[in-house]
Formats: sequence, C-alpha cells, structure tokens
Amino acid sequence: MKKVAVIIGSPSDRETILAAEPYFDFFQIPWKLFILSAHRNPDAVLQLAASARERGYGILVGAAGMAAHLAGTLKAHTTLPVIGVPLAGGVSDGLDALLSTVQMPKGVPVATVAVGKAGAINAAILSAEILALSDSSIEEKLVRFKKNGCKL
Amino acid sequence: MKKVAVIIGSPSDRETILAAEPYFDFFQIPWKLFILSAHRNPDAVLQLAASARERGYGILVGAAGMAAHLAGTLKAHTTLPVIGVPLAGGVSDGLDALLSTVQMPKGVPVATVAVGKAGAINAAILSAEILALSDSSIEEKLVRFKKNGCKL
Amino acid sequence: MKKVAVIIGSPSDRETILAAEPYFDFFQIPWKLFILSAHRNPDAVLQLAASARERGYGILVGAAGMAAHLAGTLKAHTTLPVIGVPLAGGVSDGLDALLSTVQMPKGVPVATVAVGKAGAINAAILSAEILALSDSSIEEKLVRFKKNGCKL
Amino acid sequence: MKKVAVIIGSPSDRETILAAEPYFDFFQIPWKLFILSAHRNPDAVLQLAASARERGYGILVGAAGMAAHLAGTLKAHTTLPVIGVPLAGGVSDGLDALLSTVQMPKGVPVATVAVGKAGAINAAILSAEILALSDSSIEEKLVRFKKNGCKL
Amino acid sequence: MKKVAVIIGSPSDRETILAAEPYFDFFQIPWKLFILSAHRNPDAVLQLAASARERGYGILVGAAGMAAHLAGTLKAHTTLPVIGVPLAGGVSDGLDALLSTVQMPKGVPVATVAVGKAGAINAAILSAEILALSDSSIEEKLVRFKKNGCKL
Amino acid sequence: MKKVAVIIGSPSDRETILAAEPYFDFFQIPWKLFILSAHRNPDAVLQLAASARERGYGILVGAAGMAAHLAGTLKAHTTLPVIGVPLAGGVSDGLDALLSTVQMPKGVPVATVAVGKAGAINAAILSAEILALSDSSIEEKLVRFKKNGCKL
Amino acid sequence: MKKVAVIIGSPSDRETILAAEPYFDFFQIPWKLFILSAHRNPDAVLQLAASARERGYGILVGAAGMAAHLAGTLKAHTTLPVIGVPLAGGVSDGLDALLSTVQMPKGVPVATVAVGKAGAINAAILSAEILALSDSSIEEKLVRFKKNGCKL
Amino acid sequence: MKKVAVIIGSPSDRETILAAEPYFDFFQIPWKLFILSAHRNPDAVLQLAASARERGYGILVGAAGMAAHLAGTLKAHTTLPVIGVPLAGGVSDGLDALLSTVQMPKGVPVATVAVGKAGAINAAILSAEILALSDSSIEEKLVRFKKNGCKL
Repeated sequence: MKKVAVIIGSPSDRETILAAEPYFDFFQIPWKLFILSAHRNPDAVLQLAASARERGYGILVGAAGMAAHLAGTLKAHTTLPVIGVPLAGGVSDGLDALLSTVQMPKGVPVATVAVGKAGAINAAILSAEILALSDSSIEEKLVRFKKNGCKL
Repeated sequence: MKKVAVIIGSPSDRETILAAEPYFDFFQIPWKLFILSAHRNPDAVLQLAASARERGYGILVGAAGMAAHLAGTLKAHTTLPVIGVPLAGGVSDGLDALLSTVQMPKGVPVATVAVGKAGAINAAILSAEILALSDSSIEEKLVRFKKNGCKL
Repeated sequence: MKKVAVIIGSPSDRETILAAEPYFDFFQIPWKLFILSAHRNPDAVLQLAASARERGYGILVGAAGMAAHLAGTLKAHTTLPVIGVPLAGGVSDGLDALLSTVQMPKGVPVATVAVGKAGAINAAILSAEILALSDSSIEEKLVRFKKNGCKL
Repeated sequence: MKKVAVIIGSPSDRETILAAEPYFDFFQIPWKLFILSAHRNPDAVLQLAASARERGYGILVGAAGMAAHLAGTLKAHTTLPVIGVPLAGGVSDGLDALLSTVQMPKGVPVATVAVGKAGAINAAILSAEILALSDSSIEEKLVRFKKNGCKL
Repeated sequence: MKKVAVIIGSPSDRETILAAEPYFDFFQIPWKLFILSAHRNPDAVLQLAASARERGYGILVGAAGMAAHLAGTLKAHTTLPVIGVPLAGGVSDGLDALLSTVQMPKGVPVATVAVGKAGAINAAILSAEILALSDSSIEEKLVRFKKNGCKL
Repeated sequence: MKKVAVIIGSPSDRETILAAEPYFDFFQIPWKLFILSAHRNPDAVLQLAASARERGYGILVGAAGMAAHLAGTLKAHTTLPVIGVPLAGGVSDGLDALLSTVQMPKGVPVATVAVGKAGAINAAILSAEILALSDSSIEEKLVRFKKNGCKL
Repeated sequence: MKKVAVIIGSPSDRETILAAEPYFDFFQIPWKLFILSAHRNPDAVLQLAASARERGYGILVGAAGMAAHLAGTLKAHTTLPVIGVPLAGGVSDGLDALLSTVQMPKGVPVATVAVGKAGAINAAILSAEILALSDSSIEEKLVRFKKNGCKL
Repeated sequence: MKKVAVIIGSPSDRETILAAEPYFDFFQIPWKLFILSAHRNPDAVLQLAASARERGYGILVGAAGMAAHLAGTLKAHTTLPVIGVPLAGGVSDGLDALLSTVQMPKGVPVATVAVGKAGAINAAILSAEILALSDSSIEEKLVRFKKNGCKL
C-alpha cells in the first residue's frame, strides 16, 4: 500500500501533528514523520519530495506555521497530491499560515485543511479517502467511520 | 475511469468554475457540472453526494461563496474526497468563503484550494493528482505538465 | 406554547450554550438541547430540522464553531426561523464561525447573534421576542426585563 | 397583520434595501421604509422604536454601514425583534458594519443577516418566517418558496 | 473648570478605565465615572449626553467593547466632543470595538483612541489637550509631561 | 480665533481632504492645508508641529494612508490636540492606515476618525466641537448643525 | 559593483515591478529581471539563488502574490540578503501575500517591503541603501535623494 | 566594522529583542541597545538616526508594537538601511504593528521582518547578511550557519 509522508518544519510542531496518529492507525495507513524545514533544510525537503513516489509514498502532508511554505515547496517538487496543515503561532491564531498554505497559484495545488490539530486529524482522514479510491479495505473503514459519527 | 462531479451553487458561479475546463480536458478526466445550492436544494445535494460513488464519481468538487457550506455539505454525505473552492463575493475578496470552507471540524475534511479561478484550476489539477495514484496515464500527463512549467 | 430546539455540534460546546438557560427559564420558554453535528450526523440534523414544526418547535438555534455550518444546514431543511450562534475555537476568536454563520446567500436567512456566551444568551432573548409576537405573557416579561436594564 | 418597519440611515442606502421589496410583496407583508440616522436623527429613531409596537409593527429592520449602530439603537428602545443588515462602504467590504451590528452585548440581541443586498432580501424572508409562526397563510407561502428552490 | 464625564457600559470595564485615573489627577481635571449601557440603559445615556453641557461637562468619554455603540450614542445627543475607547472582549482583541467606534458616518465624529488601557490613558491626556486650549495651567502641565517623556 | 492646520503627505490625498472644506467654511474656522510627508519631509513636519501653537494653531489634523505615521509624528512634537484621518490605498480599504493611526501608545494620543472622506469631514466637525468649548459662536453653529440632521 | 537580481513569478507581475526601474537607474545599480515561479520552476529558482553570489549578485528581490513563497524560497538557497515584495491579487488587497512573505521563521529572514508598486520602488531604494554601505557614490546619491524629498 | 543600533520604545520590549543577542554574538557583530520612543522621545530618536552613520553604525533596527512608528521614524532621518521588527500587544497578535511597519510609502523603505522574537532574531541575521556584502568573515559564518540548518 502507498505510504503517507508527513513533514513538519520544527520539533515543536510534533505534538500537534501527532493528533493524526490514531487516525492513521485506524485506517491502517503506513506513514512516516519527517522534521525538515522548507527554509532551513531546503535540499532535504526537495529530495524527499522529488523521490517520494519512487520510495512508495502516495501522499505528502506538510504542516507548518507563520509563512508556512512547507506544503507549497513539497508541491513544487512532486506530482503527488500534497496536503497542507496550517499551524497557529503567528498572527490571528494561524490566519497567516492558512493564507500562505491555501492561496497557491494556478498549476500547483495544495489541498489545505483546518488550522492545528483538527487539520492534522483531517489530513489523515483525507489521506484515507484518497487512498480508498484504489483500496476497498480503506473504503470499508471509511464507511464504518462515517456510520460511527466520524469518530474512532 | 472515475469521474469528477463539480457542483456550484448558482449559475453566476459558472464562469469562474469553467476556468477548470481546459485542465480537465488536458488530463482527459471526465467531469460533470451540477448547479445545486446546499441551502436552496439541500435534498438534491444530499442525494448527489450519497450516490456519487455508485454513479462512478471518484471526487466531488464544491465551489461556493459567502457562507460557502457547499463542499462541507457534500462531505457530510459521502466518503469520497471532497475539494472545496472558495469564491469571492462577500467580505474581503472571499476571506469569508475561505474560512467557511477550510475550517472543517475533525472527522470531515474538505481539501481546500485557493479563492476563485486559481482555485477552480487547481481543483482540476488536484483531481488529476488524486486519480493518478491508480492511473499511470494521468501520471504521465502530470509529469509532462510539470516539465512544461505547470502550463497546458 | 411553541418550543425552542437548541442544537450544538459537540459536547464541548455545552458549557457555552448553557449560559442561555437562565434566560429561557426567566421567559418560561420550553427548550431542548440536542448534540448533533451538521457534518458528522447530517441525517439526524436533517430529520430534526424537517420535523421540527410538527413536533411543536417554533424556533431552531444552531451553535457551532470554525466552519460553523450547523445553523445554515438547519435552515436548509425548515421554514422555521433559525438563529445562529458562532463559537470561538478557530481563527481570530470566532471570526471564522461568525462569517460562516451570517454570510448566508439570499433565500436562506440565519438570524445571527454575537460570538460565544453573549450570543447564546441573546439567542434565548431573541427567541422570547419572536414568540412574544403571539404570546402576551412573554411580552410582559420582556417589558419587565427591559425596565430592569436587560438583566434577570 | 403586523407590519415591518425598515429603517435606513441615508438615502444612498435605498437601492440596496429595495432588493427586499419583491420578497415583501411575495409574502404579502406590509412594510414601510424610513430614512433616519441613529446619529443624525436620534430622537426620531428613538420615537419610532419606542412606538413601533403600538403603531402595529411586529419587526424592525435596521440597515446601515460603517459603525452601523442603527439596528442596535432600535433594539435599545423596543422589545420587538430587530433584524440588522450590515452594508458595505467602509473597510473590507462591510466587515466593519457586520461586526458592529452582530457583536451586541448580552441582553440586547440584533438578528443579523448577510452584508448588502443578500442581507436585505434575507431580512424580508426572516420577517416572513417570524410572522408565519402566527399566520398560516405566510407559512404556506414559505413552503411554496422553499419548494421552488427559495426563488420567487 | 469644565469636567469630563467617563461612561462605561458595564462594571466589568471599570478596571480598564481606571488606568486613566492618575492622568486625570496629574492634570487636575475633575471627572466622574458613570456605568450606563447604550443598549440596556438608553434613556439614561441619552439624558446624560443631552444635559452634559449645562451640567458643566466639556468632554464625554465612552468606553465599550464588542458592538461598542456607547461613544456614538453619546455623540448623537450632544454637541460636545466625544472620545471613544474601544475595549477588547469580542473578536481579534478588540478589532470589532475599534471598527464600531471609529467608523462613524460624516456629521457625527467620535475621537477614537487605542484599544484598552492605553486608550483609557490617552483619553485622559487628549481631554487635557482639549481643555488646555482655554486653560493655561493645563497647558503648562502638558509641557512638563512631554518634557518628562510623556510619563507622570 | 485659533486656526486648524491640516497636513497631508502627498498631493494625491488633496481631493479626499478637501471634502472637509465646506464644513470648515460653515463653522467659519480658519484652516490651512500643508502637503508634508512624515517620512519624506520629516524636518518640516517637526517644525510645523513644534511651532504650531505659537503660530496660532489650536488643532493639527494629519491625514495619511498605508503606514500612516503622519498624525503620530505631529503628536510627538506638540502638546496641541492632533486628529488623525486614515486614508485608503493599502490593504483592506484603509485598515492598515486605521490601525497605524489609532493604536498609539499611552502618553501620545491621536484622536482618530473614520477612513477617507467621512473622516476628513468629521475632522472638521470635531475641530469645531473642540474650539466651541471656548467660542460660543461655534457652539451656536453646532447646535444649528445638529438640529438640521448634521447636514450643512 | 554588485548587481541586484529581481525575480517575479509571472509575466503579469512585470508592470508592477517595473515601477522600480527609474530608481535602479537613478542609483546606477545594475539589475536583471527574471521571470521564474517558485512553484512552477523550482529548480531554476533554486539554481539562481544558489549561484547568485558567484555570478556577481549582491541582493535578490522576490516579488509574488497570493501564497507568495518566492522570496522565502530564494532565501532558503542563498546567504545573500533577500528582499520580498508582496503583490495584490488574492484576498484583502495583498494581505495574504504580505503575511506569507514577512512571517518567516527564525533563521531565514526576508526583508519585506510594502505591497505592490510602492514596495517595488522601495525594494530598489533599500537595495541602494544596502549597497551604499560599501559604495560611497551610492551613498552620495541617497543623500541627494533624501534632500530632494525622496523623489527622483 | 560597522555597528548595529537596536532601538526599542519601551523597557517592556527588552525581553523580546534580547532573543537577537546570541545571533549578534555568533556573527560577532557589535551592537547597542537604545530605549527610545518615537513618540515620547522624538528628539532623541531623531538625533540618533541623523548621527548614526558618523557614529559608526551601518544598520538601524527599530522594534515596536501597536502603531509601531519607530522604524519609520528612524528611516525618515537616515539614509542607512532600517530594519523593522513588529511586536505583538495590540490587535490580532501584532497585525497592527506589522501593517504599520511594512506599509511604508515609496521613497522610505523599512525592511520588515516577522512579528516578535522570530523577527528579533531575523533582524540580527539580516544585519549579518547585509554587512557580509563587504566583510568576508561574516560571510563565512553565514555559510556555516546555513550548513548547520540555520541554527547556532
């Protein structure tokens, strides 16, 4: 099964993104967490994005705050779908990160979800929905999840 | 191949969403446009969302302005991935629609893209990226598209 | 007397909405609290809205945060007046929920009040004002309430 | 039947508010337009609000831009339900008027609808919904209106 | 010497406004604090504003949060200068109160200062500057205050 | 009688500020327009502010857009009351200029009015109100102005 | 003398950035314009940034709208100073691009200037100020420029 | 070597700006901290800015919150590059200070960095980048800093 690569720019974002873990577990989606900044480790980000498909990843998730270029930078170097999770920390509880993640120019979409933990969780569920298009076992779990009021 | 259902809430949104057409054409993705409001035609929206998978759709795209509940309402009735395109028309050039589309609670993600025509185009490209995970012909087109500077 | 149905999307919103309780008591308006999410329990929300009039409800109040589609979804399935209470929790102390609740398209109004507890209280008072149009005992209480500086 | 008083603060707001006229007509609700500013004609506003109930009005609608105190001032002098319609003209396409209209303190609710013409129309429909609680002929029209996709 | 009337809408605003006290003391300006809400005690607010000049007041200061109509309502009933102090408590740390206080329509100015305690203090200093135009003893204190780095 | 000095930072702001002219005329207040930028002509601004009182000015009005430091810079060099008029031209229809003008730190108030022409007009009227405290002929005109619905 | 590389992401941004041309001319600073998108031509952007110093550039200027990652991406690949010019085109007249350009995380600064043409011009002047630290001929021009009211 | 002058408007801003200290140390850049308000100590600010070049300073850094005129005022009196650090404390976590610092008119640029401590740190690094253009020892440290993931 295709894996999901989750990239955060700083160790301090780890707690927020780990809210997604029970959801990846529930849908039995293999995922891996990387701590790489688009600005401080640009080459590593670039290489991860560029090699992700051949390394077995099907989706990239970038979670970042403030200028929040991480998801967009991943997108610039891959044709895989990229999900962006804006994080709070700058102005207006994350409005800066939200605008920076979602307002991508034509040609290079980032599938943006909500700010913070709700977004981290929804990135996992959106990953499940995308992978379910070619994996009926995940689809069955999504149906069960929805029947259960979208709760684990 | 799975189809994409694009739903707009009002005929006046048609011009904006049709910016996506050349991109659906380029990636040879079959799509269909529906004009249905989440608030004025809620039953039709519900039935479209609930039956979309069995009718051969793989992705739903909801484009709406102002309160912009369309994508979220679609999401509430399907386990398929839902892409949200916020449209301008209310306050701050679409900031209202953006917040209403992207700030979904945990459990029910909407993959949100940019406001307006850039978002409409990116919804088509994101659809291609998602469908390419199980369709190598689309993947080839995505590679070509990226090599061409993300232009048609 | 017609009842008021108050719907919140999550148990965590209960404390905020209960600020309305002393006001419903003061005006002697029967009300019932439902915990139903527009996105996680869409069918239950729909059925509540669609059956509310015949079940003796005169007003629906929907209180939700972030994308805050609850009041709008209720409105889509009823001809009763719907009051929306935006709740904080997302960006800018509830600005997201406010815009999502109030910026409804023409044809489907939501009577929106302030963010948070002030809004919960005002939803109860607005309910009293609406029901007072055909109930002079509530009208008398409203006059007393106003004479007392709008305090209980 | 109870009437609706619609108050605007300036002749320049007339065109926006007249978007409501076909809706008042459709629901056969008698209404009257007043041009009175909360700040420039405070005594006239006060007297209108204070005498509205005995003059046969059941609902007051205040539409104003910028600081937009009109609806709140009406509310301060009546126990009738007051609907507020924020108008554009200041910063951010009416965000100033929206916040000023909706963020009322506890005790004095203003039922706020969308900015501009959509709000003007929705004020008329919300009036119909409120009056329909004690008038089955309006209720029948609301059902017809909803069946017709919330169009006239 | 002309007095300054400071009006707050709620006892909970008292602590913020009292930040002005040492400044009124320093400039030896007589002032009086009133707790009157524009919406809950509209008649008392009106009478205070309308009678302020003949009761010896030269300036009115209105401090309020959220919809923050207090200063504007005072202005509607007096030809004295009115200073508005927006208070936090609603969305975005007082942005709602700021917009509601400052965006007054032409003809009815409110001299708006910063949000919160800084604004309360500046309302006292602005009062001193205004009264100093016809009182050289205050002018001397202002010069001393400025020479001291605008500190007491 | 004390004069009012009105300072704008650029000739392109002249049209907006001239909306104040009929109001200065009506109240028969002598005023003079200066075109001086706080950033491009800082010494001239400084000298104007520092010498204003002895040159017969009683009030300074600074109108500027974007970073809008003009009124604050005037205030830094005078003990006279300073009125700030934010102008549109940057982001969000003047929200940048508004925040920059009004959010002054404690000790150095700027009496801020609305954005744009409404603010220009209100600066003239606020000037009249301030000067009327020691000039009964202006006070009489203010009473007449208010009786006329705050119109010329 | 060190050159300035100015990078825009799209030909449609050319008109805005060319507002800087007379200023580069006045200060006799050699500059070159590149049209390269951080998202559509990421490798070219990377190579330009990484090789800029050895190719004789002393400063990079990135001008972009919406998500506006261009300046940040340049910064990630160079130790030269990078100036960011946010451009309008998305929400709130460029507020999105401004936040995305300026809110860079610690370690990777972007020297951000105003939105649009004012920012383009100021990027040229800021370049002159930086280069003047080691070039007295530019310093002389800056002094002349300032004496002339910061006009050409 | 040229020095950096860092100016804050209030002792309460000292803790935030001192986040820059380890970075100035790492790059071995001599710097000095001044506590001077643009509004309360305008003459001292003016003299510092006007004399900075001849006193051996190469860069001025102004850090301020709310109206945040400090950096712009420094810029008005010097031809040296000026870096602005917006600080939180007013509305929306520093959005007011950000807009006031960055939206400078053409002719007078302020190189603005992020809000708060991240901005303080980035002001030091940007200073290093600027000074490195004529000092190869700083350039070597920048290369080492970047290789180390932009960490000390």
